[in-house]
Amino acid sequence: MEAARLHEYTEEMDQALQIDDVDEPTVSEPTDVIVEVTGAGWCQTDNHIIEGMWTEYVDQTLPMTLGHENAGIVREVGDLVDTVDVGDPVICHPVQTCGVCRPCRLGEDMYCEHSVFNGLTTDGGFAEYLHTSDRATIPLPAGVDPTEIAPHADAGITAYHAAKKAVAELNPGDTAVVIGIGGLGHIGLQCLQAMSAATIVAVDLKQEALELAADLGADETVDSSDEDVADAIASITDEVGAQQVLDFVGRDETTALAPDITAAGGDHHIIGYGGMITEPAQALVNGEFAFRGTLVGQYTELQELVALVDRGDVTLHTDHYSLDEVNTVAERLEHGEIEGRAVIEP
Amino acid sequence: MEAARLHEYTEEMDQALQIDDVDEPTVSEPTDVIVEVTGAGWCQTDNHIIEGMWTEYVDQTLPMTLGHENAGIVREVGDLVDTVDVGDPVICHPVQTCGVCRPCRLGEDMYCEHSVFNGLTTDGGFAEYLHTSDRATIPLPAGVDPTEIAPHADAGITAYHAAKKAVAELNPGDTAVVIGIGGLGHIGLQCLQAMSAATIVAVDLKQEALELAADLGADETVDSSDEDVADAIASITDEVGAQQVLDFVGRDETTALAPDITAAGGDHHIIGYGGMITEPAQALVNGEFAFRGTLVGQYTELQELVALVDRGDVTLHTDHYSLDEVNTVAERLEHGEIEGRAVIEP
Amino acid sequence: MEAARLHEYTEEMDQALQIDDVDEPTVSEPTDVIVEVTGAGWCQTDNHIIEGMWTEYVDQTLPMTLGHENAGIVREVGDLVDTVDVGDPVICHPVQTCGVCRPCRLGEDMYCEHSVFNGLTTDGGFAEYLHTSDRATIPLPAGVDPTEIAPHADAGITAYHAAKKAVAELNPGDTAVVIGIGGLGHIGLQCLQAMSAATIVAVDLKQEALELAADLGADETVDSSDEDVADAIASITDEVGAQQVLDFVGRDETTALAPDITAAGGDHHIIGYGGMITEPAQALVNGEFAFRGTLVGQYTELQELVALVDRGDVTLHTDHYSLDEVNTVAERLEHGEIEGRAVIEP
Amino acid sequence: MEAARLHEYTEEMDQALQIDDVDEPTVSEPTDVIVEVTGAGWCQTDNHIIEGMWTEYVDQTLPMTLGHENAGIVREVGDLVDTVDVGDPVICHPVQTCGVCRPCRLGEDMYCEHSVFNGLTTDGGFAEYLHTSDRATIPLPAGVDPTEIAPHADAGITAYHAAKKAVAELNPGDTAVVIGIGGLGHIGLQCLQAMSAATIVAVDLKQEALELAADLGADETVDSSDEDVADAIASITDEVGAQQVLDFVGRDETTALAPDITAAGGDHHIIGYGGMITEPAQALVNGEFAFRGTLVGQYTELQELVALVDRGDVTLHTDHYSLDEVNTVAERLEHGEIEGRAVIEP
Repeated sequence: MEAARLHEYTEEMDQALQIDDVDEPTVSEPTDVIVEVTGAGWCQTDNHIIEGMWTEYVDQTLPMTLGHENAGIVREVGDLVDTVDVGDPVICHPVQTCGVCRPCRLGEDMYCEHSVFNGLTTDGGFAEYLHTSDRATIPLPAGVDPTEIAPHADAGITAYHAAKKAVAELNPGDTAVVIGIGGLGHIGLQCLQAMSAATIVAVDLKQEALELAADLGADETVDSSDEDVADAIASITDEVGAQQVLDFVGRDETTALAPDITAAGGDHHIIGYGGMITEPAQALVNGEFAFRGTLVGQYTELQELVALVDRGDVTLHTDHYSLDEVNTVAERLEHGEIEGRAVIEP
Repeated sequence: MEAARLHEYTEEMDQALQIDDVDEPTVSEPTDVIVEVTGAGWCQTDNHIIEGMWTEYVDQTLPMTLGHENAGIVREVGDLVDTVDVGDPVICHPVQTCGVCRPCRLGEDMYCEHSVFNGLTTDGGFAEYLHTSDRATIPLPAGVDPTEIAPHADAGITAYHAAKKAVAELNPGDTAVVIGIGGLGHIGLQCLQAMSAATIVAVDLKQEALELAADLGADETVDSSDEDVADAIASITDEVGAQQVLDFVGRDETTALAPDITAAGGDHHIIGYGGMITEPAQALVNGEFAFRGTLVGQYTELQELVALVDRGDVTLHTDHYSLDEVNTVAERLEHGEIEGRAVIEP
Repeated sequence: MEAARLHEYTEEMDQALQIDDVDEPTVSEPTDVIVEVTGAGWCQTDNHIIEGMWTEYVDQTLPMTLGHENAGIVREVGDLVDTVDVGDPVICHPVQTCGVCRPCRLGEDMYCEHSVFNGLTTDGGFAEYLHTSDRATIPLPAGVDPTEIAPHADAGITAYHAAKKAVAELNPGDTAVVIGIGGLGHIGLQCLQAMSAATIVAVDLKQEALELAADLGADETVDSSDEDVADAIASITDEVGAQQVLDFVGRDETTALAPDITAAGGDHHIIGYGGMITEPAQALVNGEFAFRGTLVGQYTELQELVALVDRGDVTLHTDHYSLDEVNTVAERLEHGEIEGRAVIEP
Repeated sequence: MEAARLHEYTEEMDQALQIDDVDEPTVSEPTDVIVEVTGAGWCQTDNHIIEGMWTEYVDQTLPMTLGHENAGIVREVGDLVDTVDVGDPVICHPVQTCGVCRPCRLGEDMYCEHSVFNGLTTDGGFAEYLHTSDRATIPLPAGVDPTEIAPHADAGITAYHAAKKAVAELNPGDTAVVIGIGGLGHIGLQCLQAMSAATIVAVDLKQEALELAADLGADETVDSSDEDVADAIASITDEVGAQQVLDFVGRDETTALAPDITAAGGDHHIIGYGGMITEPAQALVNGEFAFRGTLVGQYTELQELVALVDRGDVTLHTDHYSLDEVNTVAERLEHGEIEGRAVIEP
């Protein structure tokens, strides 16, 4: 089958991945599931992987098929698989977990002590077929198209996971700021909207992104190419600040907003990455705020997100590409030329 | 009366404060309380105030009497005061709050929109008498000596507040790391001990501090002058990391430990300050940990800490000084020559 | 001024209250506030008070002016009042609190150790003027009519308080059941709708109530005059049960639904009352569910509800009556002839 | 092998179970584990099962080997078992779970949609060997004797689970009441002691039980054969009531204490059962308290309890019996003649 594989770390996105002919995966363990991939979302993290930014944190063996946002149709299952059947449309949680370590037993899939991560530490789904397991597949409700929903496998649950943590701290009258209305941000905004009654402020430097935010229900928008973000948030919140900030960008200049826009006791959630946090310890003490990291989300959170999609509470803005266009997608994303989410159809 | 006042910001601790003769405070509002100060703890924050480190965060008018850890005997009360009577031994919460803004109504005293902070934004208790209010005084149970307990007014509740947040996340089998077994750290360690069944690891670079930690119940001690802290924590926790880290130091080198010693999903609490947090956003994402600021604690938390003291669960290690020794104390603390907490007896 | 007062406990609602001429209240304490009442909601609890159902729980001195759901215009304030000014439109939290006991300091107004409750333990607002305090008044945003919003002072926050507790436990895909779509229930339903993405099931035995529920956004309705409620919930939830049940009725037959309709780990919130809970301890063990009582709500929750109203997320269905119609209202409510909420305009 | 089996429901405890000769269990599924039982605790629930009290709640096929508190040595494992090896000392969680349903994925083992419960819905461990699974076995730390620890498999985690819920609500200065210092209660008390700094009040009608409670660290004891419990709690708590009540008895007279001994906002945890809850809905509203059911505890909670045992924070008071003494044990427990916990050694 065809698979888009990374052979060498590079900054050159136009020659990032190579379309190789590889063997189709087959079931070897009784809990294995083979999925025919109908949609595979392209993520900013794919660019980061290509650049070699993850080598410091995880072990990677190249060549590797990228792609961690997969959905499709089950084609083969091991003997012990009960959750899905051949022919079922499914979305794939990106992490394949052991199910028996303490984090797994707590429901904390992301902290599994024996996990592999599609397209990051094992072959992913920019390919015709994906080798995964019963613990990583969720059957879709009737009417939900796996090709269309694919980006929820990572962009979706990551945004949902952060939004859920924020919602737990938000009361009516409070303010949530969403920085970056891109692939993840536009989902996070809708999750906040569906699950809280907070005032939602969208911050972006592109006009189209702010228009999308307004369409999706943002109460206020701030154009950071033009306005001082701290002043704008102070004005919207009567100088109190935002109780929760979801930073889907994670650059130096967005993390630096925290002390000025976060209310006392509030959180600045780090979801996007690439930049640094550089802050005096005293600033966190004085404002009693937190920088909280966000790493994807649990299997059960992906179930919850599928429920939101099924209710019509979250819609995705996607564009579709064929497998041999992966490098075009990589390049466009690098230049900020993709609105919403690009989906590869292998 | 005599009061130790700051006239000018300085790095010279041996001439930091000046003993001035000032008017005794009197009741002007019906909720005012005048306390004869019998003990006033000296805090690292006093050094930071003297150096001018707080001018960026709060408004200060010099000269100002420092001292935010006060306890003593009530000498005068306003007409509407019900919580305490003349003659009562009390401990004074350092923040005088309005009681009617939304944070006050939520019990979040530290976020009061109209507060003043003893010895930081208004005259404090390195003086014979302190002007405070009914909302900032807590009567002491019989047998608790106000002079002895004074440092709990700030060192105590700050440590308690951080420990309480940590305890909420700690299960038996989990690990809590306490960095810095000084004035606050030795209290925080005892609070963790009293309120959780986690494994407690004390980290310090002084042998006497580690001995104190072991006496107070630390399960493990790590000498950071000699051992690699990350290696030590990895070994103690079977490579999982510590679920909760209480950083009572807050220097560059202690905040930098976070990604290496914090377990996935864990928190690095910033309590001490002075240094920087400098970390790639990606590190927080990869480890899904948080840097959480800690700002003193609520009035009700000081009540809870007094209950712990009354039970015998928390003891203070103090040395006592007269008012004219304040600069000696400031200098000794600057050079790390004070174990436990220095208490001024004005 | 005119006031509708209870002179004697009675089951005869047509002669429940007497319109008396009494002295207008005036400011005596520096924190007092006098409100000209423009709207005062009539509550099922007023009927219960008239029947003497509260004598076992609280001290009451008759004659007493009833009315605990009040809003209007501030007419006089004490010297220390900062929260409101003469002329401000306000809604009145029904409980006047001391502000200094530990529950007050925690923000738990309802547990205040020195409170009085309008129309339950002190004179209420079925009168031209109400004597209350700064801690019990909330200024209204521009455009919110105090007459229209009055029932939120008790019906509203009680429903909101229960809904907020439920929302904290509800994930997308979960089910919340609202039993009784009357004065409180129709508010609770809207709060759930605004603050969660759970499936909402409305249960009532009147067709108009179920139509109102559907209009307000209920996902499913169950006509308990016709359908077996347990069967209906089982079918809606794939036999799992509802994670949260809000029982705004509180009769024997509604509390008895708990073991059959509540999911494992779920809660049956007791908001309405009048009936008994009669259940084997074993049923709670087997289903690990809880019966959780709900007593009005905090001052800060009334602030949050006002924010919801201001956003347009919660609307009230009210009918208006003059002060001399109080007994007509009492009788109609007794016979289930009032949809939404009756508001007295003194 | 020999197994103590229930053939018929009966009130006659002296002829409750029959020692039968049955086939030894063997591995049939790849996740199966066969444990040689060295200790099996006898539980009040065994008496309730014998009386037929569970037939209304679960499906049972007689004859059935009872025994749900098992520990021993692993003797055989299926091909996919990674958590334990042959020869390992283990404690067995009483519930064998599927691992893939949503409750299992959330870590909520007790709500597993496909579980079997040892000695309740499938054969248990009053036998030489127990057939269980990898998801239900926890290896023991060196030095922890499986025979001695067996009762923690159910008595232990049930008490721990309730205590953990209580601890989350308890602050220093608060009061926790433990009703019934028997097999579960004496464990629950130690868990509260290890994980909170609340004042602990033990209530029992037997002097020896109260002495045990005092030895284990209860701050106060109340002899309910002699004192009015409500008066005693009022006096201990300055009329505030207990924030958390753990009712390990669950009879009519203990559940009836709730409105009189529970503080506003508090919980009365139902752990023991057999009696009824009979309370006006109004009582729960007036006191805003909850009756919360408790059903055993999660696998991860059993891990946490093992950690407590390993720390020396929880000790068990046990007496040991041979398999053919089961009916003697059943009878003695029925008559309240067993202190601590009886352990069968098959």
